[in-house]
Amino acid sequence: MKIISAITEMQRTADEARLLGKSIAVVPTMGYLHDGHLALVRIAKQNADVVIATLFVNPTQFGPTEDFNKYPRDVERDIKLAESAGTDILFVPSREEMYPTDYLTYIVIEKITSVLEGKFRPTHFRGAATVVAKLFNITKPHIAVFGQKDAQQAIVIRQLVKDLNFDIKIIVTPTMREQDGLAMSSRNMYLSSTERKESTVLYQSLQLAKRLIDNGERSCSKLISEMTKLITSKSSASVDYISIASASTLQEFSNLETGDNTLISLAVRIGSTRLIDNILLTI
Amino acid sequence: MKIISAITEMQRTADEARLLGKSIAVVPTMGYLHDGHLALVRIAKQNADVVIATLFVNPTQFGPTEDFNKYPRDVERDIKLAESAGTDILFVPSREEMYPTDYLTYIVIEKITSVLEGKFRPTHFRGAATVVAKLFNITKPHIAVFGQKDAQQAIVIRQLVKDLNFDIKIIVTPTMREQDGLAMSSRNMYLSSTERKESTVLYQSLQLAKRLIDNGERSCSKLISEMTKLITSKSSASVDYISIASASTLQEFSNLETGDNTLISLAVRIGSTRLIDNILLTI
Repeated sequence: MKIISAITEMQRTADEARLLGKSIAVVPTMGYLHDGHLALVRIAKQNADVVIATLFVNPTQFGPTEDFNKYPRDVERDIKLAESAGTDILFVPSREEMYPTDYLTYIVIEKITSVLEGKFRPTHFRGAATVVAKLFNITKPHIAVFGQKDAQQAIVIRQLVKDLNFDIKIIVTPTMREQDGLAMSSRNMYLSSTERKESTVLYQSLQLAKRLIDNGERSCSKLISEMTKLITSKSSASVDYISIASASTLQEFSNLETGDNTLISLAVRIGSTRLIDNILLTI
Repeated sequence: MKIISAITEMQRTADEARLLGKSIAVVPTMGYLHDGHLALVRIAKQNADVVIATLFVNPTQFGPTEDFNKYPRDVERDIKLAESAGTDILFVPSREEMYPTDYLTYIVIEKITSVLEGKFRPTHFRGAATVVAKLFNITKPHIAVFGQKDAQQAIVIRQLVKDLNFDIKIIVTPTMREQDGLAMSSRNMYLSSTERKESTVLYQSLQLAKRLIDNGERSCSKLISEMTKLITSKSSASVDYISIASASTLQEFSNLETGDNTLISLAVRIGSTRLIDNILLTI
């Protein structure tokens, strides 16, 4: 595995691969890799000749009161894990390389970024869309792989690619979970052992909603009320939002109808750790 | 010359050229081509194997009260002129192809877009940066050629390319002028014959500033006052702005100092037609 930190070297390396007719897949990450990331790398490998993973804790997608400084970092461990999963090139730029002091440019996506995560994290998707566009121009991929765990991010990136005409195929892969159902996330390491046990309530509440829908419940307020009841039965848990919305436009449903492509998503604070999860359903 | 209107066909054609090792230059235009545009095409031709000119009156860079609807259009004439100057591919998309109804994404560049033209045309550079980024992703160029006549646009595009890491070399070519000094512009066709005569005052005022500086004048307020006096001596003319600023940051100078890279720029209404011009000087 080759490790590159300079933007120009990454671009020249991508050019060389393309001139040889090789296809490139990129897996953008913020590092502190877990099995969810490694699954993205393996899917990238199945779909392209050259897999580039990127490792960059992107400051512009964190709000001023968020966990940018304490976000977990372990580059040596990430290098070993990325290589073991079949990464060909690991791109690890510095903050200065990505955002020099005279940096001025941001990508804004309207409507779909002002709901759900965007409501609680107002500049999050501006930062995420901007860094992803930069990483696309730096790694020049044919394919980019993202995880379904960040459901709204996947929708925002698809819109970015479509609107700005990036000639890149987006693959979104299923959420990887621990054995007890908790969605894998670098932020899970913040949890105390009590919190870790209670954190399973996110996925349990999604499964509860699915069971109720399977049994005929169509009222979204009823579903959200049952999910809330279950979540708040855990002493460490408080709900940021629970949403039952169109999986394409993110507009909230009030009653589900047959055929609706539905995203049930939620953000819950377990102690001081903010976790998200979601499931996709066709009614 | 090949004419392409579909984005996917343009991308496949660019891919094919790149796989053959050919270099691509793009010349983005809003059509109604004049000798200024054709000079850009010829310079593109000297610097690349394949020259793509684009022809698209971009709605997102016009304000609600501006001249989008009456902006001059003559595609048949443009096709002949583009071909005569050596264009290999003319990309002429429809409005729907560029901005489908569910379009949501804009590129915002801070600071340098809020002065000069940006002050009078608040969403202009957001629209211009967005369409240029789209055209870059559609035509996949190694080189892009812009005219110095739109001085601030050239600075904004350089910032866009640098910040979002587009791997594209930007060439900015000198302003082409009519024999009497008027900068070539598609908007000159709006002028009545009296206005056309008086419109030479833009370049005359820039030349006056240059002479005064050559003779030792260093006060920007004095220079602007002399330019204003000359311009307002023409009955059809009114000044939007006159600026003497850093050619890189666009920050206004109050007194010129030796070595300053200086952009003297102005926007003047001649009757109801808004014209711009500029010169670059090193003090």
